[in-house]
Amino acid sequence: MRRTQLFVKTRRETPGDEPSLNAQLLIKAGYVHKELAGVYSYLPMGKAVIDNISKVIREEMDSIGGNEVLMSTLQNKELWQASGRWDDRVVDSWFKTKLTNGTELGIGFSHEEPLTNALKHFINSYKDLPVYPYQIQTKFRNELRAKSGLMRGREFLMKDLYSYSRSAAEHEAFYEKVSEAYLKIYNRLGLGAITYKTFASGGVFSEFSHEFQTLSHVGEDTVFVDEDKKFAVNKEVYNDETLVKLGLDKSKLVEQKAVEVGNIFSLGSKYSDALGLYFVDEEGEKQSIIMGCYGIGVSRIMGLLAEHFADKDGLVWPQNIAPFEVYLAKLGLDPSVIGEADTVYNRLTERGISVVYDDRDIRAGEMFADADLMGMPYRIVVSQKTLGTGNLELKKRGEQAAQSVSLDNLVEIILNARKY
Amino acid sequence: MRRTQLFVKTRRETPGDEPSLNAQLLIKAGYVHKELAGVYSYLPMGKAVIDNISKVIREEMDSIGGNEVLMSTLQNKELWQASGRWDDRVVDSWFKTKLTNGTELGIGFSHEEPLTNALKHFINSYKDLPVYPYQIQTKFRNELRAKSGLMRGREFLMKDLYSYSRSAAEHEAFYEKVSEAYLKIYNRLGLGAITYKTFASGGVFSEFSHEFQTLSHVGEDTVFVDEDKKFAVNKEVYNDETLVKLGLDKSKLVEQKAVEVGNIFSLGSKYSDALGLYFVDEEGEKQSIIMGCYGIGVSRIMGLLAEHFADKDGLVWPQNIAPFEVYLAKLGLDPSVIGEADTVYNRLTERGISVVYDDRDIRAGEMFADADLMGMPYRIVVSQKTLGTGNLELKKRGEQAAQSVSLDNLVEIILNARKY
Repeated sequence: MRRTQLFVKTRRETPGDEPSLNAQLLIKAGYVHKELAGVYSYLPMGKAVIDNISKVIREEMDSIGGNEVLMSTLQNKELWQASGRWDDRVVDSWFKTKLTNGTELGIGFSHEEPLTNALKHFINSYKDLPVYPYQIQTKFRNELRAKSGLMRGREFLMKDLYSYSRSAAEHEAFYEKVSEAYLKIYNRLGLGAITYKTFASGGVFSEFSHEFQTLSHVGEDTVFVDEDKKFAVNKEVYNDETLVKLGLDKSKLVEQKAVEVGNIFSLGSKYSDALGLYFVDEEGEKQSIIMGCYGIGVSRIMGLLAEHFADKDGLVWPQNIAPFEVYLAKLGLDPSVIGEADTVYNRLTERGISVVYDDRDIRAGEMFADADLMGMPYRIVVSQKTLGTGNLELKKRGEQAAQSVSLDNLVEIILNARKY
Repeated sequence: MRRTQLFVKTRRETPGDEPSLNAQLLIKAGYVHKELAGVYSYLPMGKAVIDNISKVIREEMDSIGGNEVLMSTLQNKELWQASGRWDDRVVDSWFKTKLTNGTELGIGFSHEEPLTNALKHFINSYKDLPVYPYQIQTKFRNELRAKSGLMRGREFLMKDLYSYSRSAAEHEAFYEKVSEAYLKIYNRLGLGAITYKTFASGGVFSEFSHEFQTLSHVGEDTVFVDEDKKFAVNKEVYNDETLVKLGLDKSKLVEQKAVEVGNIFSLGSKYSDALGLYFVDEEGEKQSIIMGCYGIGVSRIMGLLAEHFADKDGLVWPQNIAPFEVYLAKLGLDPSVIGEADTVYNRLTERGISVVYDDRDIRAGEMFADADLMGMPYRIVVSQKTLGTGNLELKKRGEQAAQSVSLDNLVEIILNARKY
């Protein structure tokens, strides 16, 4: 896409009303617009990042048997009364609204109740189970303060998967499968090496639950990491008793800042029982259904990728998440330069490489500052200097030195770097 | 996908709490679940239909220069006060909610105000225009009654495109382009022959606006159609004065029931002026920006396709909108039949044809009733009878007679029928 067609502009000044670094960067680079504290709209490049992250998650959910659905945002009060979660003293982050006739409605923050209720039409026998519906959907939480940008929004995009199993053993097996799928997702998002399955408090259904924590200087959580065993313990359950139970050696644990990038919960039969969803087993006996729920915050991951990888010049996206792989900078108005840049743009696009083509008539310094701020992995320059050399100037984001490469070589470099 | 993996079941009985035929059908066939009057969740096949419709719309929007964004649902009251649309006496279909500190928020029914406000960061000069942002996003309208199923929901999916132009002429040219893109969309959705650009009341910015109306026995609108000129007049503006203005001959107009499947509005500079979005022209003069907005109800189109094309046996989807192109029915448990059905499933899937494979052990009659109700364009039967003939049994949805075809021939028939 041509830069002039992409209606956003970058800003040099940091927005004064935004305390969070990830949102500051994303606003300056033209990816998001702040509507309210914790509420952001996604501009074209922001929408592309959301789509790229969602694609990775969707593929891994489908590969473990997930079935994609799209649940409603407006929530029927009765279903949440049945589970005891309607009351604001139980769930203090509800947004609520009303029909014109005064009927109260919830604005969904999660979907255990409505999904379990819907499944009553489809699940009767053991033959109907297990099922694994998931969605990538906008969620709403009425946070008292919202100062972490996209990392903790009042309105945010989330992938939520739910499992309905016939037994604890069947549940555990799927829970492990999701855990493995999550690690694949973090790998594909460029976070594999620094993301740890983490023991956290379990609630009423199991002694511990699991989170996935990405070690990062931008983190608000504290975890204790066992590097050898490749897992961590959240500070909230870090005590001698827990360590003994988990068989961990205190002397090997290292305290780190981290960001929660996913969580998986065993829910037992709390919601299925409360909503009246049961199954009849092989012997004709009515049985409870064991549920799990598995979340990944899509917009939170966007915020984390933005903030964690950023340097002093701006954003630095992983290649498969960047809205464009290449930032093509054309310097000057010489018709030969324009012709050459057009050719490069067409050739890269033909090879399936996504390119933002800066065809504006501005100074090189301004263009390069934009390219760095926006964070595409490859910056290519076509200028008077490169004309006639048969080569282009390539600079990878995050590296200082530019190199001279042929167009064929460039295509090879970009395609080979696509790991996933 | 195997039918057993698709967790939904069909229902024979019509849901008693659902007055609308489209929602009745979609519920019986397992496409949607009703949460509340006018609020539906999309089950896997329903989500696939939504995605297929969205894909057509997205491609046509991109082809006229649209830039996809995703605006927030939660709305800042101040922006809507600026345009005069916050007051419930002006817009009587708002859902509203509150932050924990008591601040009122709107729940978005449209996005002129927030989008225009966001663009203030990007538009200064005539060089920054025109721009054409659009989104496919969930909208909320607090309808007093919601009895039309997916055709008029309280929560629904909509494509909304907005144009920002430098002059009335530039606006008119794009307005025409959208009009053409809309007709392409209806063509690709199988509605081309019965969809008419229609004169309707214009509001305060222009004498008339345009709707797109699909002639259908399920319609709630009344239009007068000029078959030769291939356009229509909505009953709301149908009078002698209008006909003279439009140069229409009353004797040629035929009264018809119709469903509004899109609308396009000239907004003048009402919202851009109110929100303070201007541009500086070539002479350095500050100028107003001319806006247009262009809507297509994605979930409404799903409801219309469901209801309009249905017959007494159930749904009948256009091939490019159906969640699967083929319903593959395997009859009985004979290992040779299962082997043959597995082969057919794999061969079709390898050729990029989407198949739902009914691998259940149920009676043929029940399976065929499900296939008809769910509405895939091609039903293929593999049974003892077809084994050894080298052929399969093919029945097209909507036709009574089955035919015997080879697998190669079948693939050819399906691929050739893909018009778009």
